[in-house]
Amino acid sequence: MTSPGKNAGKKDKLLFTPGPLTTSASVKEAMLRDLGSRDTAFIAAIRAIRNSLLGLAGLSREKGYECVLMQGSGTFGVESVIGSAVPPGGKLLVVINGAYGERILKIAGVLGIECEALRCNENRKTDPGEVAGRLEADESITTVAVVHCETTTGIINPVEETGSIARGAGKTYIVDAMSSFGAMELDLEAAEIDFLVSSANKCIEGVPGFSFVICRAGALDHCEGQARSLSLDLFAQWQGLETNGQFRFTPPTHTILAFERALEELAEEGGVAGRAARYSRNYDTLVAGMREMGFVEYLAREDQGYIITSFRYPTHPAFDFTEFYTRLGEKDLVIYPGKVSDADCFRIGNIGRIQDSDVRNLLKAIASVLEEQGVENAG
Amino acid sequence: MTSPGKNAGKKDKLLFTPGPLTTSASVKEAMLRDLGSRDTAFIAAIRAIRNSLLGLAGLSREKGYECVLMQGSGTFGVESVIGSAVPPGGKLLVVINGAYGERILKIAGVLGIECEALRCNENRKTDPGEVAGRLEADESITTVAVVHCETTTGIINPVEETGSIARGAGKTYIVDAMSSFGAMELDLEAAEIDFLVSSANKCIEGVPGFSFVICRAGALDHCEGQARSLSLDLFAQWQGLETNGQFRFTPPTHTILAFERALEELAEEGGVAGRAARYSRNYDTLVAGMREMGFVEYLAREDQGYIITSFRYPTHPAFDFTEFYTRLGEKDLVIYPGKVSDADCFRIGNIGRIQDSDVRNLLKAIASVLEEQGVENAG
Repeated sequence: MTSPGKNAGKKDKLLFTPGPLTTSASVKEAMLRDLGSRDTAFIAAIRAIRNSLLGLAGLSREKGYECVLMQGSGTFGVESVIGSAVPPGGKLLVVINGAYGERILKIAGVLGIECEALRCNENRKTDPGEVAGRLEADESITTVAVVHCETTTGIINPVEETGSIARGAGKTYIVDAMSSFGAMELDLEAAEIDFLVSSANKCIEGVPGFSFVICRAGALDHCEGQARSLSLDLFAQWQGLETNGQFRFTPPTHTILAFERALEELAEEGGVAGRAARYSRNYDTLVAGMREMGFVEYLAREDQGYIITSFRYPTHPAFDFTEFYTRLGEKDLVIYPGKVSDADCFRIGNIGRIQDSDVRNLLKAIASVLEEQGVENAG
Repeated sequence: MTSPGKNAGKKDKLLFTPGPLTTSASVKEAMLRDLGSRDTAFIAAIRAIRNSLLGLAGLSREKGYECVLMQGSGTFGVESVIGSAVPPGGKLLVVINGAYGERILKIAGVLGIECEALRCNENRKTDPGEVAGRLEADESITTVAVVHCETTTGIINPVEETGSIARGAGKTYIVDAMSSFGAMELDLEAAEIDFLVSSANKCIEGVPGFSFVICRAGALDHCEGQARSLSLDLFAQWQGLETNGQFRFTPPTHTILAFERALEELAEEGGVAGRAARYSRNYDTLVAGMREMGFVEYLAREDQGYIITSFRYPTHPAFDFTEFYTRLGEKDLVIYPGKVSDADCFRIGNIGRIQDSDVRNLLKAIASVLEEQGVENAG
């Protein structure tokens, strides 16, 4: 009756970005179904996803952890945690070294939650010692939040040490692990994390449409009745999922089915360790090739994760980022603009359904564009 | 490298529900792509969608209307409007004859917005005269909200008359047109609607993952700085879309592509009039067939829309709804439980990619299940 969609089957650009990412064909094909939100197969998918996510973190309900899925982007998930976990009259300390830490602060501000920022330079890891100092100086702080892999730069923050200090001081501890969860080993119990937030379209390699929260059941219990929103009420969402296995409000059914498949593929790849190995290979290949051309990373190597890397613009006067970005795009390769505030950078992500060979192709294309621009050395 | 998804290509049940709905194959196939959120084709899709939605309502930017897309389910969209449009210290009057009106009230309550309910029975249309009375009695009311097609029953509320009264009294006017927009003619200008909310997975026949708001530009301007949420800030979301054509936070890229295709198919079907004609045929066939078996509708025919119909349970003692529902499901036909508070009902939706012939098949299946249950007459 209808003509085939004009986009179906078209070859897409490879995405070297922080997400949405390139996903596998079978993840996308899992969306070729229409399931009702009360369908038993769909309810089983939700259940399997929640259990798998706990399993990825080495956790389980028996160990006292819960998993909640939340409609919307990762930011919606973060807002649901901030708005639900900080008690009335509570105070949030946000540990910040990039745009996503700033976003947490902004969320708290809009929600009318008292908050304080502990900032450090974007090219420095956050400092657990400074967190301890702030907590000592201000007993009214109830909650601490930090970003694991700050996607602004790709830096990996010391969430374990920070957790030990925050929880040691009796505070609730929130970690935004948006761009790291599923590809970096993280022991939530050891790191004493109360709430960890991540998203469907990052390292699990699903498509965008919802986020998820892994939390200590005891911490989740305290959220009851605290939410500043109906849609983003973390406790009510959990309660809904527990009562009948369904979402309170219309779920993104197709996105959920894609995610179920993505989790299967993650397991096939060897879980977190297997995925970490592939992303690390991508990263090693990238950095070696970029350095060969003269590019300089924004971060010191020891602070840098293998998720996403910020490179400084070449100092050569012929370099023009917009043109560089556009020409790579014409070769079906998508990189990402920078987001650091004190330097001109661009970013290249290693996550998503990208192989070492794809990174090599990207490097060749970058070399060719530099040559077209007349940039002999990218330093 | 990976095995094909186990679900790909499986024949799905037909959904006679309020949504998520059965969608066309080509709508789902439009999701077989991974586009970056900054991709020019993706930005063009967002722009095309926003313009098409205005066009469906007979509106345009030149006429002073705007369209904003919001991640999450329809409820997220409603919350973004309530939380952004009611001014600080404002008061909301919610006109209620079902669960979705109650939900608006609940949203306002959680957001700490002063609100008042004007309730009538679920089997009665809301009364514009009563709205006028409330507005006269309480000058502190700033905003009026009502549901167009109350999905609880399928009743169609008089949104035009209510708008005339609300706006005549100088109030901001919000309409939840979740399950009607795209399949019922509605003149937003004549109805004096400031904000209309609907969702991707209803009568446009897209897949779930976002909602949309059509609004008077002047009313939207007043929302600046008023939102009670960062994620659900309607004005900021609009501003983001205007600034660079992108979402502020990760968009559901695949869902958006499906929706672009769904809008094309709606146009191919003859727009709102064409879709209304098909749904009306579905409805006429359904009601005639159900009456023939003895079923009785919950609503008077003149109050009932063609979107979804509530039927009373047969009084025959052998009728068992759970079994009835399950047996239809075994025949790959999904109906929906009732939601009215004062009668035992179930619901059958006429929306989604469903034809007259599908309704006839449903009727045959219902007759057969009744026979299996030993229910000679469904009255």
